[in-house]
Parts: sequence; structure tokens; C-alpha cells
Amino acid sequence: MQVLGIDEIREVLSSIDLMRVIEEGFQDFTAGKVVVPPVGELLFEEPPGEVHIKYGYIRGDRYYVIKIASGFYDNPRLGLPSSHGMMLLFEQKTGTLVAILLEGGYLTDVRTAVAGAIAAKYLAPERVRRIGIFGTGVQARLQLRHLKEVTDCTDVVVWGRRREALDRYRDDMERAGFRVETTRDAAQVGASANLIVTCTPSKEPLLALGQLPGGVHITAVGSDTAEKQELDPAILARADLVVADSRAQCLERGEISHAVRAGILAESQLRELGEVIRDGGRARSSDEQVTVADLTGVAVQDIQIAKAVFEASTRRVPDDDEQLPFY
Amino acid sequence: MQVLGIDEIREVLSSIDLMRVIEEGFQDFTAGKVVVPPVGELLFEEPPGEVHIKYGYIRGDRYYVIKIASGFYDNPRLGLPSSHGMMLLFEQKTGTLVAILLEGGYLTDVRTAVAGAIAAKYLAPERVRRIGIFGTGVQARLQLRHLKEVTDCTDVVVWGRRREALDRYRDDMERAGFRVETTRDAAQVGASANLIVTCTPSKEPLLALGQLPGGVHITAVGSDTAEKQELDPAILARADLVVADSRAQCLERGEISHAVRAGILAESQLRELGEVIRDGGRARSSDEQVTVADLTGVAVQDIQIAKAVFEASTRRVPDDDEQLPFY
Repeated sequence: MQVLGIDEIREVLSSIDLMRVIEEGFQDFTAGKVVVPPVGELLFEEPPGEVHIKYGYIRGDRYYVIKIASGFYDNPRLGLPSSHGMMLLFEQKTGTLVAILLEGGYLTDVRTAVAGAIAAKYLAPERVRRIGIFGTGVQARLQLRHLKEVTDCTDVVVWGRRREALDRYRDDMERAGFRVETTRDAAQVGASANLIVTCTPSKEPLLALGQLPGGVHITAVGSDTAEKQELDPAILARADLVVADSRAQCLERGEISHAVRAGILAESQLRELGEVIRDGGRARSSDEQVTVADLTGVAVQDIQIAKAVFEASTRRVPDDDEQLPFY
Repeated sequence: MQVLGIDEIREVLSSIDLMRVIEEGFQDFTAGKVVVPPVGELLFEEPPGEVHIKYGYIRGDRYYVIKIASGFYDNPRLGLPSSHGMMLLFEQKTGTLVAILLEGGYLTDVRTAVAGAIAAKYLAPERVRRIGIFGTGVQARLQLRHLKEVTDCTDVVVWGRRREALDRYRDDMERAGFRVETTRDAAQVGASANLIVTCTPSKEPLLALGQLPGGVHITAVGSDTAEKQELDPAILARADLVVADSRAQCLERGEISHAVRAGILAESQLRELGEVIRDGGRARSSDEQVTVADLTGVAVQDIQIAKAVFEASTRRVPDDDEQLPFY
């Protein structure tokens, strides 16, 4: 049994073809090969905290995975991160514990960002003029970094509420090779960017249909509960293509759920990300189309990244040439 | 963060007052202080396997605990144990992972046996003439060993189906200081023993009311699902006192559930083990009474033993004098 700490996990990540690993996971999910029981939840009141236990496996695969992730929102007062996380890998045929990945929530962040890059690969306009990012946190950084794998565009406009956070984001991302304009006006993002990623915890729409003058792809990442919302549902109603990471889950929460509940988007109009990947190639017919991907996060992403990290850790020392700069 | 292996766990167990620790847990449970969400379950078909994820905490306590236990019943063909298990201990106020106990299912076995000793402490006749054990497995061994903490009686009759298993049980337990008679006739146990523990996976009653001529206490341990059954429900109907480890759970599964469903035992007649402990002293009015304790296993036992093991491991090296011989 192996225990992998965060440093080792970051190191081996750079040797993994994460796009391929996560794409395979989405295809298996859409093909009905993934077994994922309901999420376990443990709640605390004083101080407030929540623990989520997600677990499942891909039929015929080697491992099953349990992920334990928690949020204790008073932690920053104690100088501790509010999120914790770990993944456990077991043999599917014998139940033997194989590895404990003390990833602290980082692998969830990464697998989410990789899904964003996959969505852009299949859905973004062929010519990305400008990338628009909503949010200035960890996920807003990772999403942008991972887009390097699917577009050469380095021209970025980032929206945020706080000037200071915007400045830090700009400085960090410029060091990572992007040219970043900051704004607190959502219309400015909508007017110039044609590949937009929203990664905020907003509970009301940040972006309205009227703020999107032309063809665009939007990946919505932030809205992972029934309350959260980042997009005007009219955008989804107008879109030429709306893609869900999990059809079933997106009907329960996230942007799609709001539009379906409002009666302006039909379930039959949805496609699942795994279908789009399986069909291959760009899923839009022109750069003028409007497409939306709603990523609420599915357990198969955890299964795939945990497995890949463990296998890479047992296989070899990563080659310097292959190391991406940002892990 | 500490990772404790099975050797270290066995070593520190001998320095812990497990009776006290588990008694406190049952009292907290009965007092409504324990938060335990539904058990998570993951099932496998080829080869067959099942994983159970149990988790919870005692309000106002320091830790929360997640237990992962699995059974893969083809494992013995591969020379592997069929059961696996581990417990994870986290800080309740911050979610920080504190310890990983690689206990392999052993702590579940021990906390179950300790509950048996607690039941005997409060419910057995004052003068135990003879101990009767049904079953020859790990739990049948641990139950008998733990009874040493509550009775001086070392005269034992053990019932089993297979001669070979009976002989091995006798040899092992005689080395542990007991005098053991073996039998394949349940009536022989009922006729001579007045403290009986059943720990088999039987799906039909092993012991009938007519086979119990006098006062007796029976602790039923084996029946932890809705299908399993070790006692004639008439025994529970006749009993002067029927005690459940968890009232709610025993109505769903175990001996009590069979008797209640048969309409011969009323829910109002039940007492909970935590109540009996809280009231203190022997719960029977004479050695001639018949009492039954039904132990289906509750998560607070896991919480308490995990916490105690971790705290003992950080505290000190156990004193030789205190070491029980059997861990």
C-alpha cells in the first residue's frame, strides 16, 4: 500500500496525459459503464462544516475509488485551508487497499480544469479570438492554464468583483504566458471573448444573453449546487448546442437545471460530453454558433485521475521534457 | 497525520479500557448525541464483493470517523482474507485528517466482542455456571476471551457444525485458560450453560425455547442482516428483558426484528443497551430470569474504538502489567 503526498502527486501529474484519461472517463460514463452510488454527506454545525464521500468504479476496470472531501469554512480564521480532500484506491477484484492519495482537494481542482479544456477542445470556435474568465480563484487559474492544451490564444480578459484579486490573477497569469486585461464589467467579457469559462460561486447570473454579440462557447464550472447560477438561462435557450457532463445530474443542479425548470430548455436538446467526445471532432458547425457546456463534476473524473496518478507514481520518474510548467 | 498498522493497533489495544470506552459510546448513542447518516454501499458482481462505508460522530466530541469495510468472498481462493477494513479519523472542528487505522476489520471484531462483554456485565446471571458459545470463528473466540473481564467462569461448551473447527476452537481456547467441551447438539448448550453467546451466520434458529430449562442470558451477535437468525423468536417473547444495541436498527434486522414481525414481541418491551448501562448495576432481578441482548453493531462503537486506539498510540507505550494476553 502506497501513501502519496501532495508533492509527489503534483510531480507525477506532469507525466500524465490527463486529457486522454478524463476523456476516456466521460466516454465510459456516457456508455453506462460507471457505477456511482449516491454521495454520502456528513454535516457539522459548530463550527459549520460538511464532508462529502463519493465512491464508485468503472465496470471491468482495475480499481474502485473513494473520495473524501470536506469544507470547513471557519478554517481560514485558524490559518488552515477550508478544503480538505483525499482519495483512496482499492482493487476492484479483491477489495485490497492499493493507495492513499493525500491530495488535499487538488486533484478535484485539476480534474475539473481538465474537463474545461476537453469542453473547449470539442466545442470552442475554431479561431479563439480571446479567452474570457469569470472568477479569480484557484479554478479560474487552472482553467486558463489547461486551455493552453487546446488553443494558442493567450489574450485574456478576466472578470472579478475585487480589484485586488483581479490584479493578483493578472500578475500570476501573465507570468504563465498570458496577456491579461481585468474588468469588473461582465459586458466587456461578453463583447470581446469567444471562449468563456465561468468559475465563480455566484448565486445569480453574471452574464446575460444580450452581452454576447456573436458566436461563442461558454463552459460553466462554478454552479455545482441547485442554488448556484452564473448564466442567464436565456443563453442556454438560445444556444445551438448545450452539453452536460452528466445529463441526470445537470437536470438536478447547475445552469441546465435552471433553464429546464424555467421551461425554456428541453431535456431532449441536451447532449452529454461523453457523446461529443465519442463522436470526435468539433461539435459546432461554424464559429458563429453559440455553445454551452455545463460541468457539475462527475465521480468518473475522480476515478480516472486517482488511477492515473497512482499508476504514474509506480511507473517511473517523469521526464523533464514532458513536465508542464504549472504543477 | 499518523498511519497505524495492525501490529501497532494490536499493541495499543491492550492499554485501553475498552469496556469503558464502548460503554460511553452506547450511552451517548442512547442519549441522541451520535450523528450517523445511512451506510454507503458499493457492490461488485464479478467476482462478487461488497463495500460498506460507515461514518459519523458524537456531538461535542473531538473527531469524526469513517470506516470502510469490505467482503470479497472469492478472496480465500487467492490466499487473501475475504474481509478488509480501515478507519479514518478526522478533526471534527476543521476536517483535518488525523489518523489512518489499517485495522483490516480487526477493530470491528474487537468492538463487537467488547459489546458482548458489556451485555454480559449488566445482564448475565450473578453466578455464571457455564458459558455456551455458538460458533467457532474469530468472533466466537473474541467473545469468550472478552468475557474474562466480567466473569471468572472458565467452563465452556461450544457448539459448531464441523468437528474439525470445534477441535481447533477447543485447543485455542484451552490455551487461553478455558476448559472447553465441544458439541454438535444445541440442546446440550441450552441445558448446561446460563450465559450464552451466539456468533454464527445462521439463517435459521439454532436454539429453541424448550432447550433452555432455567435462567439464562443470551447475547445474539451473529444476526446482523434481515435474513440472518440464530434464536427461536419464542425465546425473545418469553424473556423477562430484551435489550437492543440500537432500538431503531434492531427493528430492521437481527433477532428482535423477527420476533416483532411475528407479533410476539412489542417495541415497547425493548430496552436499549445505553439505558441499561446508564442505570448501572445488574438489570435482572434474579438468576432465574431469561434475558436477551441483540447486538447488530452500531457506528458509535467504531467511533469510540478508533478514537481510543489513536489516542493511546500518541500517548504512551503500554505497560506490560496491563497487557491482556490476547491482542
